[in-house]
Amino acid sequence: MRELGWPAAMPTIDRDSIVPIYQQIYEELREAILTGTLPESTRLPPERTLAEKLSVNRSTVVHAYRELVVDGLIEQRVGSGSRVARSAGQPARSADVPWWITLPPWRIGSFPQVLGELAATEHGDRISFVPGVPPLEPSPLAELAKSFERAAGDSDFVLSYGDSEGHLPLREAIAARMRSRGCTVDAREVLVLTGSTQGITLVAQSLAEPGDEIIVEGPTYPGALQIFGIAGLRAIPVAVDADGMRVDHVEAILRTRRPRFIYTMPSLHNPTGVTMNADRRERLLTLAERARVPIVEDDPYGELAQPAMPPLVARSPNYVIYLSTFSKTIAPSLRVGWITAPRTIYERLLLRKQSYDMATSLYVQAGIYDFLSRAYDEHVVRLREELIARRRIAREAIAAHWPKSMRLTGGGGGFYLWATAPREIRARALLDAAERNGATFLFGEAFYAASGGDHNFRLAITPVTREALVEGIRRIGESIAVLAAR
Amino acid sequence: MRELGWPAAMPTIDRDSIVPIYQQIYEELREAILTGTLPESTRLPPERTLAEKLSVNRSTVVHAYRELVVDGLIEQRVGSGSRVARSAGQPARSADVPWWITLPPWRIGSFPQVLGELAATEHGDRISFVPGVPPLEPSPLAELAKSFERAAGDSDFVLSYGDSEGHLPLREAIAARMRSRGCTVDAREVLVLTGSTQGITLVAQSLAEPGDEIIVEGPTYPGALQIFGIAGLRAIPVAVDADGMRVDHVEAILRTRRPRFIYTMPSLHNPTGVTMNADRRERLLTLAERARVPIVEDDPYGELAQPAMPPLVARSPNYVIYLSTFSKTIAPSLRVGWITAPRTIYERLLLRKQSYDMATSLYVQAGIYDFLSRAYDEHVVRLREELIARRRIAREAIAAHWPKSMRLTGGGGGFYLWATAPREIRARALLDAAERNGATFLFGEAFYAASGGDHNFRLAITPVTREALVEGIRRIGESIAVLAAR
Repeated sequence: MRELGWPAAMPTIDRDSIVPIYQQIYEELREAILTGTLPESTRLPPERTLAEKLSVNRSTVVHAYRELVVDGLIEQRVGSGSRVARSAGQPARSADVPWWITLPPWRIGSFPQVLGELAATEHGDRISFVPGVPPLEPSPLAELAKSFERAAGDSDFVLSYGDSEGHLPLREAIAARMRSRGCTVDAREVLVLTGSTQGITLVAQSLAEPGDEIIVEGPTYPGALQIFGIAGLRAIPVAVDADGMRVDHVEAILRTRRPRFIYTMPSLHNPTGVTMNADRRERLLTLAERARVPIVEDDPYGELAQPAMPPLVARSPNYVIYLSTFSKTIAPSLRVGWITAPRTIYERLLLRKQSYDMATSLYVQAGIYDFLSRAYDEHVVRLREELIARRRIAREAIAAHWPKSMRLTGGGGGFYLWATAPREIRARALLDAAERNGATFLFGEAFYAASGGDHNFRLAITPVTREALVEGIRRIGESIAVLAAR
Repeated sequence: MRELGWPAAMPTIDRDSIVPIYQQIYEELREAILTGTLPESTRLPPERTLAEKLSVNRSTVVHAYRELVVDGLIEQRVGSGSRVARSAGQPARSADVPWWITLPPWRIGSFPQVLGELAATEHGDRISFVPGVPPLEPSPLAELAKSFERAAGDSDFVLSYGDSEGHLPLREAIAARMRSRGCTVDAREVLVLTGSTQGITLVAQSLAEPGDEIIVEGPTYPGALQIFGIAGLRAIPVAVDADGMRVDHVEAILRTRRPRFIYTMPSLHNPTGVTMNADRRERLLTLAERARVPIVEDDPYGELAQPAMPPLVARSPNYVIYLSTFSKTIAPSLRVGWITAPRTIYERLLLRKQSYDMATSLYVQAGIYDFLSRAYDEHVVRLREELIARRRIAREAIAAHWPKSMRLTGGGGGFYLWATAPREIRARALLDAAERNGATFLFGEAFYAASGGDHNFRLAITPVTREALVEGIRRIGESIAVLAAR
């Protein structure tokens, strides 16, 4: 019964990581077993002992060991505890471990795993400020139902795949809307996507290879960080201030590095709500053109900005790949977005988009096209007004219920408020307290490619009701007071 | 004015390739320029001269040169012809070429680019046997419209993303249906996808890395070959006969190679219509388990097979990742499919699925769930009968209009007929003749990872009308007669 190697393989855990602790333990032990640092038959410490050494709950270690059992890497027997399985560390193809142990390694957990959380609707009885989706009022439902009724009756829309580029009338309508915002775009440069999240994966996989560097904002959309992590890209964060991305930092990075692209959300930036000013836009485009680095402009909220600015792609169509969606202006469940790109790139994007889902649902596209042609403009105006009203309500509630030491960034509009707590309050601790008090939100670390965000958190001011918006802010205020009093 | 290097860079073209000839010329010249084989300022032969040397149309060379101009790699001036652009071959970041020239290389064209063609609905006035989609009758439209009307009125379905795993009642319904086919599957192992094409990309990217080998059938679904090509996988083809995949060939391959997975369509195989017999199924599973190589079972047509066989996953849930879809049994425009996998793999697939589109449309899922609970069973029975009737009609038309020298493979049911022409008739030439005569189909090469299929072609017996099915077969018969008479 060997215990060789065990002290060297003692897991180290990082309590500040967004990776769950059980998973950190599991991954370290897994690697130690597969590399032979923990040879076969090595006895692992009892769960209680390891839990005490690491100062974690016993259930955390139980969870980690259970994953290793599922992998076939350790064996557990009543009375003799846990041991490294025989031949677990040998070349796994010929050994007695499941095939999935031999999969290409993936540093799962090294990026925020938030897309599922952002999509999920179940938050118990808590008031949830997590998902950013449109409010119930103004409701697009009645008009949308009419549009879908028309599409559902047409076998041409339901019983075929349709062109993988997208439904041509919809592509034309999208191009016309973009032209009205100052872009010189042709319908043939519009590729309809199944949500703009798809477009982030599309550029991550088409414009870069694993190991390549890219520039992102810090903070930025955490779903994009998950996608870049899965694609194996190394994201270099650039700070955001009240005028948008710090373009001077971009300039400094471009002096020594060759990122594959710059990912930015210049209008109603998620999470800060900031819109990049005109000077910075011009400077960013000039830098990108000079360095020959394309910009990926993610613009889900651009139509909601007030005052509106032309997208970056309007000024530099050959250097900007543009992404947008109807998820924030009509409904997220439609899963329809789009990307525009120069024709040379377009073909490459198209072939890969086909590999994701062949074509975006023609039935849904036909419904959206009908809605666009009848009801969209009025709906967007009302939505913009609702968001402005909610922002005012939220700011008033914050003024009433939060201490002055809390700061709010941005304020241009859109779906989010980005809060900064004073040094003595960590956002993660505040989240724990707020959840016990019946409110939940996303804490800041998920928005940063590297470190940062410990004292930040994001509130989505929709789809909660206006009443819940005020009540949730009040509850968070109570939790701040509790933490500040400690 | 240098002409150095030019003879060495003379493009070689492969007339039997599925890559368009202009693209072959473009790609070879592009590589020659970027590698410096064709140095800057080298004069290219006039389009007419090169066209004559290569025995191609002048317009083919014009097209290739135009692509190089778009890339910034050559310059064209009236009176002085085409030359390699200055600094085109230098490290491109600092040169005067567009940024996309420096993208990671992608051997575009080395795989069939057919997903777009399979999705497209526009085929002019021709009778098209290309896309495999359900017939207009029996129509699911009336009941489906009712189901969507219910879903469209519910803001919970329309105004949220929903769980990225899928709508739980739908996952439960799918698991229950699979259990009725002999599978031991739990709803928590069902991941809803935006069509099963998404599942092929999901496994290609999650279970393998670029350069890895996999086993596929030959012929196989050409969309899968496009996906494997984009993912950089090397597909080893295994022949299919009247009893399904040649499992003895799989065994031989596994003696010396370690493919990442085996992609197979054991029921109503596309394109041959063959269903793998019980002996081969058992032997394939035993081989896979022994070699620790997972099987990816693609089963879009399984519910239409008569007699039905349990899926492979029923016998070996830990070694089979199972894919299916509602595209063939309800409607392709819904873009809803699913994958089942062991829990350990499931988490990895889920995170990547989120990166493709966050979650599959909850609105559409809710509609399908309603349809499943009311109308699906009856619809599938009627659809199966319609396909059997169409197959009989098609075989009668073929007996009446095609020479005896044409062979048909398979016959178990499903959407396709796979035809083999005698040696003197190439499928590509037959397609040219048939298209001039008002009918179109997919020729065989697209279905093979390596060589093969020169004399084969696939007819989808749906969604053309029954009348068009007969008339189209008659037109193809005329074209066969014309070619045979040459």
